[in-house]
Amino acid sequence: MTEQSPHPAAGSMRAPTAGGVARAAEKIAEILPPTPLLPLEVDGRTIWCKAECLQPVGAFKIRGAWHRLTDLSAEEAAAGVVGVSSGNHAQGVAWAAKRLGIAATIIMPSNAPRMKLDATRALGAEVILYDRVNESRDAIAAELLRTRGGTLVHAYGDPWIIEGQGTTGIEASAQLAARGLGSPDRIVACCGGGGLSAGLALACPDAEIIAVEPEGWDDVTRSLEAGRILAVEDLAYPTECDALQTPQTWPINFAVLQARGVRGVAVTREEVRHAVRVAFERLHLVVEPGGAAALAAVLAGKAGFSDTMLVTLSGGNIDPAHFAEILQAR
Amino acid sequence: MTEQSPHPAAGSMRAPTAGGVARAAEKIAEILPPTPLLPLEVDGRTIWCKAECLQPVGAFKIRGAWHRLTDLSAEEAAAGVVGVSSGNHAQGVAWAAKRLGIAATIIMPSNAPRMKLDATRALGAEVILYDRVNESRDAIAAELLRTRGGTLVHAYGDPWIIEGQGTTGIEASAQLAARGLGSPDRIVACCGGGGLSAGLALACPDAEIIAVEPEGWDDVTRSLEAGRILAVEDLAYPTECDALQTPQTWPINFAVLQARGVRGVAVTREEVRHAVRVAFERLHLVVEPGGAAALAAVLAGKAGFSDTMLVTLSGGNIDPAHFAEILQAR
Repeated sequence: MTEQSPHPAAGSMRAPTAGGVARAAEKIAEILPPTPLLPLEVDGRTIWCKAECLQPVGAFKIRGAWHRLTDLSAEEAAAGVVGVSSGNHAQGVAWAAKRLGIAATIIMPSNAPRMKLDATRALGAEVILYDRVNESRDAIAAELLRTRGGTLVHAYGDPWIIEGQGTTGIEASAQLAARGLGSPDRIVACCGGGGLSAGLALACPDAEIIAVEPEGWDDVTRSLEAGRILAVEDLAYPTECDALQTPQTWPINFAVLQARGVRGVAVTREEVRHAVRVAFERLHLVVEPGGAAALAAVLAGKAGFSDTMLVTLSGGNIDPAHFAEILQAR
Repeated sequence: MTEQSPHPAAGSMRAPTAGGVARAAEKIAEILPPTPLLPLEVDGRTIWCKAECLQPVGAFKIRGAWHRLTDLSAEEAAAGVVGVSSGNHAQGVAWAAKRLGIAATIIMPSNAPRMKLDATRALGAEVILYDRVNESRDAIAAELLRTRGGTLVHAYGDPWIIEGQGTTGIEASAQLAARGLGSPDRIVACCGGGGLSAGLALACPDAEIIAVEPEGWDDVTRSLEAGRILAVEDLAYPTECDALQTPQTWPINFAVLQARGVRGVAVTREEVRHAVRVAFERLHLVVEPGGAAALAAVLAGKAGFSDTMLVTLSGGNIDPAHFAEILQAR
């Protein structure tokens, strides 16, 4: 088991709140139209897929980044922000920073998909690469903040980020209501560090939340079962879900997940690939493996069904050759 | 030049009207949520992409079919409908027929994409295959109507179909208004037989309409230039845009296009493939070649730019192997 570096901003952190999610939802509604909520029939039941892959940066991460950066003071904004991300949060932070005129530095794994690296740079952010297996991104962030200053915008261990991601649930609930349906009673969410899952838990207090992780990277699932935070055991475990490769969750996320009785499930590589193909054929959406994990759990019968079930399709940033390979591998 | 069979319903046809488009828009808003209108930056300008590939059947064709079938009398509905289609209209008619409990027979080319054939059958329609090069689908339809009865639901040469497709423009205009923008001043539309283009011309009387066809199948472009209807010269001309392979437009479409001064442009195979890849990478949408023709024209500089430019991404039904091949061929 890997020793985790201390959270770069530990100690000074407020807890995320449902009120914060509501405030974030108002801010986000001003700048981003709702992403489509698409029905999909699975085994004769209708599930509701939230197409976050259609956000301007191709992932829900734009939500938390916008909420965080718009809450910086003028002084904080002037000092810039530092993000750590496998690629989608990177683009979210870079997008928000560009729009607000804030300097952004993002620490990204050197093996992140090419298009995520390119897109982050194209949005004007400075990208610092690290080795996902042998280096700690949090340690690099801490060092950067110490030497250069600025505000850390963590990919999931941050109250603003959690609140911002939770707006997905507020938006989906409003869309269900507009269709004459009730609030979601079960939400199946793709889970890396638990930012989205915790945000949804705050946003939709009456919904059962299922956090879906890829095989080998199911630390949140194991942590929730164990009642304490456990890290990923093998950081070299292969997965196509690069967006969900987080070494472990943080107490700020875990507290919310545990209090709400969230349960985790893990999906296999083949289950994820099948979900990518189903989203392609039946929804005409480009969903990256990490963004298809929740749908994979549903299709594999690992998330059951409920009356009004919401499923996140959380991102669509995938290299063309990789996507083509998944389409052909059947 | 191929001799065209007479339109199976010629002689008895009313003209489509702007009022009909407005009425269709009301009916469609009751059953289908608006498809997303996604901004895309091209050469520093923002264009607005109407993601009709996200309709339940993966194409805008659901609009006209719904408008037509909901206007049938009880007696007409009981006798069933006959459609002719390369695959997207087929699914639109089958979807509407299933929902309304109407029997549907669809005449489709034997070389239509597998997924279009499968999806049409899965929606409960009877499919009759024909040879696209050596047989006339309109003649087959006429014979079927003579022997079995029923109502023809033509893929484009039908006032209801034209009005229904035009609702795309009504919906997009409302979405632009919600973003504080004016009505579209230029609309670039994928064009097969001219149902969508004619509908948009009626829906948006102040917009310049550009109808985009694939190379070799640019009969509408040539007809508009010549001032009279010309047919496709080589029905065996290869194209990936199966959705736009129509032998010629009908007077009911041509009259609208000509009166509005619509102009046509043709796009090459490579321009279309590039557009499919751009939609994949930057919009995270699965767009079939025929649905990417309008975007191809914009990206190739063949449609210019305007202040508020609307571009249709009209369909997303493509076999996975074909899509993979396009992604890899660069």
